[in-house]
Amino acid sequence: MFRWNNDYNQGAHPAILQALQQTNQYAYAGYGLDEWCDKGSLAIKKYLGRTDVDIHFLIGGTQTNYTLISHALRPWQSAVCADCGHINVHETGALEHVGLKILTAPAKDGKLTAEALHAIIAAYRSSNTKEHITEPKLVYLSSPSELGTVYAKSELLAIKHECLQNDLLLFIDGARLGYGLGAKGNDVDLKTVASLADAFYIGGTKCGALFGEALVIVNDALKKHFRASMKQNGGMLAKGWLLGLQFYTLFADGLYFEITKKADEQADRIRDALIKKGIPLCPENRTNQIFASLDAEQEKILAQGHIFEQEGYDPDGRKIVRFCTSWSTDETAVDALIADIESL
Amino acid sequence: MFRWNNDYNQGAHPAILQALQQTNQYAYAGYGLDEWCDKGSLAIKKYLGRTDVDIHFLIGGTQTNYTLISHALRPWQSAVCADCGHINVHETGALEHVGLKILTAPAKDGKLTAEALHAIIAAYRSSNTKEHITEPKLVYLSSPSELGTVYAKSELLAIKHECLQNDLLLFIDGARLGYGLGAKGNDVDLKTVASLADAFYIGGTKCGALFGEALVIVNDALKKHFRASMKQNGGMLAKGWLLGLQFYTLFADGLYFEITKKADEQADRIRDALIKKGIPLCPENRTNQIFASLDAEQEKILAQGHIFEQEGYDPDGRKIVRFCTSWSTDETAVDALIADIESL
Amino acid sequence: MFRWNNDYNQGAHPAILQALQQTNQYAYAGYGLDEWCDKGSLAIKKYLGRTDVDIHFLIGGTQTNYTLISHALRPWQSAVCADCGHINVHETGALEHVGLKILTAPAKDGKLTAEALHAIIAAYRSSNTKEHITEPKLVYLSSPSELGTVYAKSELLAIKHECLQNDLLLFIDGARLGYGLGAKGNDVDLKTVASLADAFYIGGTKCGALFGEALVIVNDALKKHFRASMKQNGGMLAKGWLLGLQFYTLFADGLYFEITKKADEQADRIRDALIKKGIPLCPENRTNQIFASLDAEQEKILAQGHIFEQEGYDPDGRKIVRFCTSWSTDETAVDALIADIESL
Amino acid sequence: MFRWNNDYNQGAHPAILQALQQTNQYAYAGYGLDEWCDKGSLAIKKYLGRTDVDIHFLIGGTQTNYTLISHALRPWQSAVCADCGHINVHETGALEHVGLKILTAPAKDGKLTAEALHAIIAAYRSSNTKEHITEPKLVYLSSPSELGTVYAKSELLAIKHECLQNDLLLFIDGARLGYGLGAKGNDVDLKTVASLADAFYIGGTKCGALFGEALVIVNDALKKHFRASMKQNGGMLAKGWLLGLQFYTLFADGLYFEITKKADEQADRIRDALIKKGIPLCPENRTNQIFASLDAEQEKILAQGHIFEQEGYDPDGRKIVRFCTSWSTDETAVDALIADIESL
Repeated sequence: MFRWNNDYNQGAHPAILQALQQTNQYAYAGYGLDEWCDKGSLAIKKYLGRTDVDIHFLIGGTQTNYTLISHALRPWQSAVCADCGHINVHETGALEHVGLKILTAPAKDGKLTAEALHAIIAAYRSSNTKEHITEPKLVYLSSPSELGTVYAKSELLAIKHECLQNDLLLFIDGARLGYGLGAKGNDVDLKTVASLADAFYIGGTKCGALFGEALVIVNDALKKHFRASMKQNGGMLAKGWLLGLQFYTLFADGLYFEITKKADEQADRIRDALIKKGIPLCPENRTNQIFASLDAEQEKILAQGHIFEQEGYDPDGRKIVRFCTSWSTDETAVDALIADIESL
Repeated sequence: MFRWNNDYNQGAHPAILQALQQTNQYAYAGYGLDEWCDKGSLAIKKYLGRTDVDIHFLIGGTQTNYTLISHALRPWQSAVCADCGHINVHETGALEHVGLKILTAPAKDGKLTAEALHAIIAAYRSSNTKEHITEPKLVYLSSPSELGTVYAKSELLAIKHECLQNDLLLFIDGARLGYGLGAKGNDVDLKTVASLADAFYIGGTKCGALFGEALVIVNDALKKHFRASMKQNGGMLAKGWLLGLQFYTLFADGLYFEITKKADEQADRIRDALIKKGIPLCPENRTNQIFASLDAEQEKILAQGHIFEQEGYDPDGRKIVRFCTSWSTDETAVDALIADIESL
Repeated sequence: MFRWNNDYNQGAHPAILQALQQTNQYAYAGYGLDEWCDKGSLAIKKYLGRTDVDIHFLIGGTQTNYTLISHALRPWQSAVCADCGHINVHETGALEHVGLKILTAPAKDGKLTAEALHAIIAAYRSSNTKEHITEPKLVYLSSPSELGTVYAKSELLAIKHECLQNDLLLFIDGARLGYGLGAKGNDVDLKTVASLADAFYIGGTKCGALFGEALVIVNDALKKHFRASMKQNGGMLAKGWLLGLQFYTLFADGLYFEITKKADEQADRIRDALIKKGIPLCPENRTNQIFASLDAEQEKILAQGHIFEQEGYDPDGRKIVRFCTSWSTDETAVDALIADIESL
Repeated sequence: MFRWNNDYNQGAHPAILQALQQTNQYAYAGYGLDEWCDKGSLAIKKYLGRTDVDIHFLIGGTQTNYTLISHALRPWQSAVCADCGHINVHETGALEHVGLKILTAPAKDGKLTAEALHAIIAAYRSSNTKEHITEPKLVYLSSPSELGTVYAKSELLAIKHECLQNDLLLFIDGARLGYGLGAKGNDVDLKTVASLADAFYIGGTKCGALFGEALVIVNDALKKHFRASMKQNGGMLAKGWLLGLQFYTLFADGLYFEITKKADEQADRIRDALIKKGIPLCPENRTNQIFASLDAEQEKILAQGHIFEQEGYDPDGRKIVRFCTSWSTDETAVDALIADIESL
């Protein structure tokens, strides 16, 4: 039985366990004020091509999202996201729990469009009772999105343009950023992300680490007191070096890019097999998440050897399922899945 | 240079790293719905002598405190704690951040007393404008306390009596619970804790784990929807089995009790040396945290070979410092510290 | 120039000012614990045909909405409403500000439908990751709605059925309740409202009072500690008798019903004139708010003698405007408006 | 029976009811965007001697306090006040409810001292784990205080000095400001208050109005978006002109100062009688609230003809009671009370 249901079902890349082992006998300063956090930050900054950013290591995605957004916004302001955005539909109202409203726009293939964003901003700006509504002040987007699609550079530029014209912040959820960077056709690199986002995070949990997200704060206005917000929101790990060390291991020599790219390639192999069989992708993407519509017979057969996730139904009533590859995906597992697809 | 400044400056007990290594190649269900969380829970329940409790694994103490308390209370209710309580003075207002007020009582040796609790409850009950004040509804206490003191069974019983008389919940922060259980003279075991508290947690971060706290919910009324509160408060680890596995490792064969007891014994050796030198303990306790008043000369000498924490000043103007032992404390380091104390 | 832009642009029914005058020399207990609040409650209960409800007098609608809802819900729960619901679009995120998420359903003529509600509940119930989403627990609806439409008894029964089947609370915002009760064709009376809603409020601000909303709590589970929630949310008026007195004046002899019904009748006269001219109503309703599509010429002419509100555009690009009648509408003003409509 | 229990037990100064009557037939713009709010602001600004402030009219004190403070602070910041401060002890945790922590200092005669404030700030500034505690960022004080004492100019200057040295905001709760301004020996006028406070409010509810508080925002940084915060916190009255009109009536010709001064003078007459009888004042003050220690016999006799408030016990076990005069206090009632005191 092969598990494809998600990309966080295995521990960590062996190099990370090794690093934990090698440092286990040493004592470090607490709460992220240690040398590994410094080294991890430096290793990431090298890929950003700049040192004028603050990097903080948090534990998980939900936590990172609501901590950063609630640090950035005032009570009368709100975050804009696609209706399928993770903060809107999969975080148990965490952002509202700390007092902030989300304004949602219809997504296109899982992505927020500049047009939809523009409409939300325009509605606010043209209102003559602004004090009765919240001020859209921050754009949240995830790339890859919840549907595995990646924002093209042109799409990010169009969104950024709206942000600049209207004084909104841009925050990018990169829980699966590695898989976006490694995707075929992707034209965005870390430097570009850092040049566009006021803050973004580089996901570790789903990309080789045991756990951890590296939040990069680019906008100076968001930097001060962020560690207080981390502590207040339960996001400051006592043994913070465990996070720094993991990101150092992933970024010192580019391991992060290597393993996520490989996962994308394996996903492409599976996608090719699906396409060849005429199985619809919904939507098509080039990252590690594959969404496909299966008929009942196909699903039944594949379920004999593979665990995958149910995602609802397509307009024709066929089941949408998700297969994820990840940094830990074994090539022989992919071979097996492809063989089973070909046999359909 | 030996580090005594805190009890969370080293990774994890070797058995834990070994367990991570051995399971790293296997895939597990996410979000704590895996077999290791089950096994970890069962291992703990064995020591509780009961199975009718819910056990959840969270990442850190602050998070566990505010998640449980905000899950338990309604907006018009408040938590009562000693003025030096961790939720009041070291969590950046995390509980207030999610909307709840703390009522504080003067501590005695770091502990809340039943008398002080009674006074707070009585003030509420005798008020004829109750709707203008918050209802004290939950008692928070940490044992060992922030000053390393342990609540005696009689003290807990007196506090519980107040709770029962006045319909308050009792929540015990056990970030250092292991060191309390292992302390000389302690008359409280896990079964007793579970018989008194509506909820409590067994600290892992400071007691041998890489990170993690095992929250035990005893009161049925607090059980439902707790996983939603965990997610909402950023406390649900994607790879939840990493927590379950660690607690399984610590509790399957009693390792937790063994390593924390040993740390207490090492602390007792240091305390004996201090007492012999006439150095005041403030307050005296039998757990892994040693608070001592040093004069300038003593501090200077000890600082040459040891890192310890500054905690303020005693009434005579001498510096109060903290030495912590932990599960990772090396006996030879203790020997060295004792030798240096004896040389003062 | 006649003002039709809203229904809260004049002080109070003369009987209310008279009552204020007559009581001004007497001293009363504070915070709503006075005889006028008692009398106001009794007067309302007479029309409810029951005494087993709690009635609280708050100052305004937004305040009443978020105070009741946040009193009723737990952090992991959410309120369901139509996408145009007042709590969603006109209260500056007040409900989110106190920590709660809103789930929205597409409205039909400004109203929530049982079908749309069912879909939201079904999505939650069928989810196998419930802890990642909020639990829909309370239905908010306003009747008359923001578009002046009134829920028929059958519509309320269908919504109530969903609530009962799925353990949701039903809360009705009655900021304009009087205009709903008095509307032609309305088949819901106060007894029916009280038999269906767990809580609802009878609007005073827009229906003859200087200010004030009478919140009726029917469900016993919501009654306790509500005054604490009022105080905590800034909704407890020091001189509470000012509210009780106003509602006593409105309900002692049915003045409330009389003046709102008259306003509906005046609105019907205006609607008739619009219909006769072929001016579309959008949507049609029988309460005090008239929404009509005007072309540029029509708008220009009417604007010469009348102030009305801009509400956006209809699909054909014509401007949607709102005319409100109210308890204070003068018949001669209506005559003038009708004459101007007829002249178009 | 005469009522002395509080200063908000009667309606409004007759001039206010008259103004309501005279404007009742006119229609006004909603939400405070009307001419009376403009006129009320201008009338107040005349006494401030400046026009560069924003004035907003809110309904009550609790609402004004938490709305302003939560508008001003970020989540990691806290408000400092005396332990007996109204926001700490009489507002049902309203400030915590919207996410903010209060740091309390021991009061002296109901007042915060610059020394106690300094100690709180110093503790923060000297901390080397600042991210684990909240940043003291705003000073809240009420003048007159909850014990009727007034801050001398020198006391306010000393507190302001601390604020300026450490970048804290100063917010003054003036629920009873009129009684402070009119008190014998007071050396602070409205111009001085406006020169020291970043924001403060002029109480109407207890000083002649039916209800309402005039919030003066002096600091430019606090001005923007405040109306959104008002709406979000339920503090924007639909018929806002009712508030503006009342403050216009009170300030157009100085009525506010006249009626509160007279109340202070009546209180002084009562205090003189108490002192003559050797009845201790606790503490002594010169405003409209009189706190006195009565023995059982004295209390019994006075209770025959007067209603007053119980406030607890003095160190000798005598009951502390409160008598309030107000703008509505009748001179003959004062004569009666004095006669009864003299008869003791």
